[in-house]
Amino acid sequence: MAEYLLSLEDIQELWPLLSPQEKVESLQFVPRHLAEDFFLSLSAHDQAELLLNVPPIDRRSWVRLLPPDDVADVLQSMDKTHYEDVLPYLDDQTRKEVSALLAYAEDNAGGLMNPRFARLRPEMNLDEAISYLKRQTREQIETIYYTYVLDEQQHLLGVVSFRELFSGKPDLKVKDIMRMDMVKALDTMDQEALSRLFTKYNLLAMPIVDSENRLKGIVTIDDIVDVVNEEATEDIQKLGGMEALDTPYLKTSFFRMIRKRGGWLVVLFLGEMLTASAMGYFEIHIVRAVFLAMFIPLIISSGGNSGSQASTLVIRAMALGEIGFRDWWMVVRREIFVGLTLGSILGAIGFLRVIAWQGLFDSFGPYAMRVGFTIFGSLVGVVTFGTLAGSGLPFLLKKWRLDPASASAPFVATLVDVSGILIYFSLAGILLHDVLFG
Amino acid sequence: MAEYLLSLEDIQELWPLLSPQEKVESLQFVPRHLAEDFFLSLSAHDQAELLLNVPPIDRRSWVRLLPPDDVADVLQSMDKTHYEDVLPYLDDQTRKEVSALLAYAEDNAGGLMNPRFARLRPEMNLDEAISYLKRQTREQIETIYYTYVLDEQQHLLGVVSFRELFSGKPDLKVKDIMRMDMVKALDTMDQEALSRLFTKYNLLAMPIVDSENRLKGIVTIDDIVDVVNEEATEDIQKLGGMEALDTPYLKTSFFRMIRKRGGWLVVLFLGEMLTASAMGYFEIHIVRAVFLAMFIPLIISSGGNSGSQASTLVIRAMALGEIGFRDWWMVVRREIFVGLTLGSILGAIGFLRVIAWQGLFDSFGPYAMRVGFTIFGSLVGVVTFGTLAGSGLPFLLKKWRLDPASASAPFVATLVDVSGILIYFSLAGILLHDVLFG
Repeated sequence: MAEYLLSLEDIQELWPLLSPQEKVESLQFVPRHLAEDFFLSLSAHDQAELLLNVPPIDRRSWVRLLPPDDVADVLQSMDKTHYEDVLPYLDDQTRKEVSALLAYAEDNAGGLMNPRFARLRPEMNLDEAISYLKRQTREQIETIYYTYVLDEQQHLLGVVSFRELFSGKPDLKVKDIMRMDMVKALDTMDQEALSRLFTKYNLLAMPIVDSENRLKGIVTIDDIVDVVNEEATEDIQKLGGMEALDTPYLKTSFFRMIRKRGGWLVVLFLGEMLTASAMGYFEIHIVRAVFLAMFIPLIISSGGNSGSQASTLVIRAMALGEIGFRDWWMVVRREIFVGLTLGSILGAIGFLRVIAWQGLFDSFGPYAMRVGFTIFGSLVGVVTFGTLAGSGLPFLLKKWRLDPASASAPFVATLVDVSGILIYFSLAGILLHDVLFG
Repeated sequence: MAEYLLSLEDIQELWPLLSPQEKVESLQFVPRHLAEDFFLSLSAHDQAELLLNVPPIDRRSWVRLLPPDDVADVLQSMDKTHYEDVLPYLDDQTRKEVSALLAYAEDNAGGLMNPRFARLRPEMNLDEAISYLKRQTREQIETIYYTYVLDEQQHLLGVVSFRELFSGKPDLKVKDIMRMDMVKALDTMDQEALSRLFTKYNLLAMPIVDSENRLKGIVTIDDIVDVVNEEATEDIQKLGGMEALDTPYLKTSFFRMIRKRGGWLVVLFLGEMLTASAMGYFEIHIVRAVFLAMFIPLIISSGGNSGSQASTLVIRAMALGEIGFRDWWMVVRREIFVGLTLGSILGAIGFLRVIAWQGLFDSFGPYAMRVGFTIFGSLVGVVTFGTLAGSGLPFLLKKWRLDPASASAPFVATLVDVSGILIYFSLAGILLHDVLFG
C-alpha cells in the first residue's frame, strides 16, 4: 500500500471536515476495495452525499454495491428531486424492488426489510436444498443463514436455519425439519414494536409478510441495532425538551436547530408565564414577608427535579416494554410513596437550614419554627406533586395516543413550577397568617 | 396442545405478577420445548430466579440449556453465595469456561463474549473445512457463520464467512480465501466502545483477542442490541437527574429506588440553596420593587430549559461517537450563537408581555420600558449562559474522566438558576438604578 498517500484511518479522521468534493477525491487515495468497504459502512445520509457528488460515469458502480433496502434508505435521505440522479443507474430488477420499498413508511417493517432472501420449496430434500441455496448465493441475498420455505403463491410455510439444513440427514425433506411456529411480523408494523420483538425472542432475522401471509422480505438484527439507537436518540432529545432532530448533531443546520429547539422553548416559556401571574396573586405575601421570596427557586426546582426523575423512569420503562398502560395505577401509587419519602428528606434539610440561619443571623425572629414548617410542608407537597405529575403524565399522553416522551423534564418542571408556587404561598398563608395579614 | 391449561401467551402476560414458585409451576402447563424457548428468551435476572427456584433435581437440565456466556450473565445477576447452587450442575468444560468469563468485568468485551466459536486451520482445503465445521456444529458453538482461522498457539490469523467457504472452489485452501484485515477487539475493551465498532463497520460478529492476539471468544450482534439498550437506559436515567437503576423499573425495590434518586436530589437541593443566598444578597431590590420577584421563575427556568436542550444534544452525540473531545470549541461556539438567537426570541416575547401588562394594568408606571429591557436583556443573558453551560459541561466532565451524562437537565438547571438570579438582579440594578436606590 506504499503507493497510496492516505490510509483509510486518515480519511475517517478527516471525513467530517471535508467538503463533498474533497470526500469524493479522498477515496481515490486508497485501494478501491477498501474505499468500497468504507462506503458501505457510511450512514445513508453520507452515502447519498457521495453518490450525488461522484461524476455520473462512476455512479453506477457505487450505487450497485448497495442492496435494495439500503438504496431505498439512501433515496429517502435525499431530496425527491434527486431520485432521477440515482434510479437510472440501477438494474431493472433492483429498481423495481426499490420502488416497492419506497411505498412503505421509512419507520415501519416494510421500510426496513430486504426483499432478497434465501427461499426453498417444502418438497426438496436437504441435499437439493443445499445446492439450490448455493445457486442463490450468487445473487445478492441478505443472508443464507435463515431460509424461508414458500409455496408457489409465495405464502410463508416455515423457516429452516442453514445450520439445521447443514447438520440434518441429506435425504430428509425440507418440510420435515422446517419450524412452523416462527415469529413473523406484518409489513405495516412500527419499527419500535419490531425491535421489541427482536429483543424479546432473541432473533437474528425476522420474516415480514403482508396481510395474506405472503413473504415480502426479511429484517435482520443489524438493521435493528440502528433502529434501537435511532429510537433512543429520539426519546433522549424529546426528554431534553425539544423536537427530535432526525439528523446527526453536526449535520443539522443552524436554522433547523433553532426551529427544533425554539418551538418547545417558546411553549415552555408561555407556560412558565403563569408563574408570574400566580406570584402576582400572592404579591401581598411578598411585600409583608420578603424572606418568603428567597425560597421560591429552591422549592419549585425541587418539584421539577423529582418530576424529571419520575417521568424519565416511566418513559424509558414504557419504551422498553417493561410497563404498559394497564400498570398505571401500580406505578403512580408507588411514585406517590417515593415522592412522600423524598419530599420528607428534602423538607428535613430545608427545615434545618431555616433553624441554622435563625441561630446564626436571627433571620426570622419569633416566627422561625413556623417558617421552618412552611418550608418542610411545601417541599413534601411539591416533591410529591412532582413525582405524581412526572409518573402520571406519560400514561395520559399514551392514552391520548401522543408520544409519552413529550413529558420531558422541562415540560414537567414547568407544570410543577406553577403548582409549587400555589402550594408554597397557600401553606404560608395558613401557617404565617398573623405575620402576613395580622 | 388441547391438553395444556395455559398457553405460552397467557404465561408471558401473567409473568410479572407471579411469585417465583408460581413461575416454576406455570411452566409445567406448557409443552417442554416451548417452556425451554421461553426460558431462553428471559433476561439473565429472570433466568437466575427460575434456576434457584426449580427443585435441585431439575436444575441440571435447565442450566445446561444455556451457553457459557449466558451462564456467566446469570451468575453475575445473583448473589455470590448462590454460585454453588448452580456451578455443580455444569459439565466440567463449561464450568471451566464460565469461571474464565467471570474473571472479566461484566461490561467489557471479555464479559460479553462466547468462548465457543467455529475454528479452522489455514492449510485445510475448503472441502475439509466444511466437514470439519460439520463436526463442530455438534458442540454448542455460537455461530458457524463466521469461522476463525487459528495457528496452533490459538493466534488469530484470519476470518472466513461460511458463505465464502460454501461458494468457493473446493480445492482452494482456507488461507487463500481468508480475510486478514478484519476488525477485532481486545478482551478489555469497554462494551460501549465495542458497540460503536459494531455499528461503525456493520458487523455481525467480532473476534475478541488477548494482548498477544490469541482468540478468546466472539461477540455477536444480538448481544450488542442488549448493550445498546442498556447503555441508552443508563444515559437516559442519568440525564433525568439520578443514578442509573441497573434493574428494570418494576424490579427495583422501594429502598433502592429512594437511594438511587435521593442522592442526586439532595445534591441538587444543596446546590439550589445557593439561590436563596443569592437572593438574600438582592433582598433590597425586592423590597423596593416587588414586581421584580414575579419574573424570577420565568427567567431562571428559561435558562434551565435551554441548558437542558444543549446538554442532552451534546451528551447523546458523544455517546453515539458523532462528536469527540476535539470538537469542543466548534460545538460550544455554535451553541453560543444558538443561545443568543433563542434568548432573543424569548426576550422579545417577555418584552411584549411587560408592555401588554403596562397597557392593560399600568403595572410598572413610568418604568415600563426599562422593566421590559431588563427582562429582554436577562433572558438573552440567561439563555445564552444556559446553552453555554449545557454544551460545555459534558466536555469538562469527559476531560476529567467522569461520565458526561452526569450533566443532566436538573444539574444544568441548578447551575443556571444561581447565575440567572445574579444576571437578572445585576441588570436590574443598572437599568432601574433610580427606582431601586434613588
